Amino acid sequence: MTEQLTLLEIARAGEISPEMEEAARSEGVEAEKIRAGIENGVIVVTRNRVRKRVKPLAIGEGLRVKVNANIGTSRDHHDVDEEMAKLKACEDTGADTVMDLSTGGPLRELRQAMIKNTDLPIGTVPIYQAVVDVVNSGRKVVEMKAVELFDAIEEQAKEGVDFVTVHCGVTQRSVEKIEREGRVLDVVSRGGSLTVGWMWHNEEENPLYEQYDRILDIARKYEVVLSLGDGLRPGCIADATDRGQVEELVILGELCQRAREAGVQVMIEGPGHVPLHQVEANIKLQKRLCHGAPFYVLGPLVTDIAPGYDHITAAIGGALAGAAGADFICYVTPSEHLRLPTVEDVREGVIAARIAGHAADVARGLPGAAEWDLKMSEARKNLDWERQIELAIDPERARKVRSQIPPSDEDVCSMCGELCAIKIGRMGKKSEPD
Amino acid sequence: MTEQLTLLEIARAGEISPEMEEAARSEGVEAEKIRAGIENGVIVVTRNRVRKRVKPLAIGEGLRVKVNANIGTSRDHHDVDEEMAKLKACEDTGADTVMDLSTGGPLRELRQAMIKNTDLPIGTVPIYQAVVDVVNSGRKVVEMKAVELFDAIEEQAKEGVDFVTVHCGVTQRSVEKIEREGRVLDVVSRGGSLTVGWMWHNEEENPLYEQYDRILDIARKYEVVLSLGDGLRPGCIADATDRGQVEELVILGELCQRAREAGVQVMIEGPGHVPLHQVEANIKLQKRLCHGAPFYVLGPLVTDIAPGYDHITAAIGGALAGAAGADFICYVTPSEHLRLPTVEDVREGVIAARIAGHAADVARGLPGAAEWDLKMSEARKNLDWERQIELAIDPERARKVRSQIPPSDEDVCSMCGELCAIKIGRMGKKSEPD
Repeated sequence: MTEQLTLLEIARAGEISPEMEEAARSEGVEAEKIRAGIENGVIVVTRNRVRKRVKPLAIGEGLRVKVNANIGTSRDHHDVDEEMAKLKACEDTGADTVMDLSTGGPLRELRQAMIKNTDLPIGTVPIYQAVVDVVNSGRKVVEMKAVELFDAIEEQAKEGVDFVTVHCGVTQRSVEKIEREGRVLDVVSRGGSLTVGWMWHNEEENPLYEQYDRILDIARKYEVVLSLGDGLRPGCIADATDRGQVEELVILGELCQRAREAGVQVMIEGPGHVPLHQVEANIKLQKRLCHGAPFYVLGPLVTDIAPGYDHITAAIGGALAGAAGADFICYVTPSEHLRLPTVEDVREGVIAARIAGHAADVARGLPGAAEWDLKMSEARKNLDWERQIELAIDPERARKVRSQIPPSDEDVCSMCGELCAIKIGRMGKKSEPD
Repeated sequence: MTEQLTLLEIARAGEISPEMEEAARSEGVEAEKIRAGIENGVIVVTRNRVRKRVKPLAIGEGLRVKVNANIGTSRDHHDVDEEMAKLKACEDTGADTVMDLSTGGPLRELRQAMIKNTDLPIGTVPIYQAVVDVVNSGRKVVEMKAVELFDAIEEQAKEGVDFVTVHCGVTQRSVEKIEREGRVLDVVSRGGSLTVGWMWHNEEENPLYEQYDRILDIARKYEVVLSLGDGLRPGCIADATDRGQVEELVILGELCQRAREAGVQVMIEGPGHVPLHQVEANIKLQKRLCHGAPFYVLGPLVTDIAPGYDHITAAIGGALAGAAGADFICYVTPSEHLRLPTVEDVREGVIAARIAGHAADVARGLPGAAEWDLKMSEARKNLDWERQIELAIDPERARKVRSQIPPSDEDVCSMCGELCAIKIGRMGKKSEPD
């Protein structure tokens, strides 16, 4: 492949590429806003250069908060058809991107099927492929060679993956911070814990940090957005915002700068488990340390006590994070901490995260965001139930719930029946509600 | 009944009553804290003097955020057994109080069955009974006499109801504010819209405002906590924090003061639908205007676009409200805006509101709150699944979800299988995760 300019280089040259135009159109903003945002590193546009079928997506400052859904298999449960059904559920419920986190079954087949079957941007965590390949070849994870890690990244970039999580901030120095301070739950990121285990065993620095330029070369070549992973993110609220987490973020800030210098688009991953009163500080810290780079948060979950309801604990944190400036929310499903998600969990997870994102958009005053709410409110005022259902974030669910205990009067619902406040109000002055 | 001192008068005299002791015990605080809080009007203890079976509950400043569940029938759907099942669901899921909002079927039978069958504090909205009685007697709602409203309040107080919602702040003056400014959704409170309809038709002031002393007399006599209702609360985020809402709150502040002067405990009801960026301001405004009176919020829902998921939109607002100082959260179920809730909706609603309340408790630094999270995190660290399930806010749900896709290794879950970060981490330095 001949060396092409990256989107960041094009933006820096003051040019607007077709990808920027398309992302701007679907966002409803001027293309120049996207261009300037890419130039300043506060917006990324995901679009692998070799991928045939994908909608370029803009993520970052001043834009709608985006939602990612993690799908994929584990060794305990893997079924390609089921993953395709999850992919469809992501599309149906309005996820903006999908990450394939598969670790079991035919990984390449799964990933390629995803890339082929959707025009949503696809993200991956290439270390999973590398590790599974090592294990399948009869070796131990710690025997993985650095080159195998870079090969996995390049293989997936070549297949068309639009963004990759790379845990480059897990270093001897940042891990040491955790050891010295002590933590309740140590390392809870899969990629992070594999990396730490490898580093300990081999007494070496993390190759993704030490040979970061190799990742930049791959990202340049295929226009892959780097998502700098938070391998040391807190796994419980007691560990939130500790030295290990912050040290890693400081390192990610430096790596973010190096990516920009190399013409590579970059975003930063963030926690995780964070108590409500620390959420805003976490966002402001990332924005400062990473010079405004898009922030991609996992939740955050504001409490640890609700397995089975972590889509809710995450929606609380996600809404607050979004309002404080986070740009991209990774969903959490009701199955988090308990098992692999089902298709239904994927649906619930996407909707909960979209609710959080929209609440944040409204809070941030994103042009057009509160208009959706206003339309719904007008439909309620008009007792127009078809319109209410049409406007609902999940029309199918809204229709189903309403029909389960139908009202005797089609104007109202069975909650209040004839005592519907809206209906009484509509009768107007001098009316006689009876 | 001989005139007895009220809890507020006892507290003012510097005495600690058995109710205060019991509420303090279940809260895990000193009884003096409860006494002083009642004296200053920043804490209420719900406990109707004539009720045989009820746990006194303290609500207010510096205490755990409490959760109320609204149950009850409508004319479209009423079944006493189903309501008893909902009542049991409230107890099972940990609601702190229950309000009976029935408007259909045998109202007295329903209410009395609730009072008899639980030791949770019970609240009501007596205007519903009054209105249904008027309609059942063949008259129109607007033909209701003021005395019938007061009779309904007294009847329910006499039966043992612990707190009542009275929409005393719906006045000619506050309604006029809404008319002048204009609103998308006018009046969305059932009690509020019935009151406004009555006032318009009869061209009279709201009797609950004009003859407020009659309510105070009843409340004194039975030790009923007044919950001053927000009949003019916004029904959509576009209407939030408008002049009508704030004018009503100003009036409620005055009525709150008069209640305290009369020795009557009082709390204030609040919105409703409020965008995320206005939630904190709403709480601070109420606390100032009502001199620290306990604030009982309905959600608030931070967006209007998610019917079918309003337990989530409300959990976001409730967590934020609680963190900002709200004391008491009324749950919202997934069926809100669509139909009467089922038993399953009640379960979901209580858990979602409890998550919000707990997240707020942690954020406010309530002693002991974050310890629950810490215990869960330690159980996770130890891969102790029985303990995780035992500590879950809904153990039944957690157990069920985990079992749906069981792991092949009982140490982990099917999300990550053998790539469990905790398990890899536990192998320690020099370990060889494979």
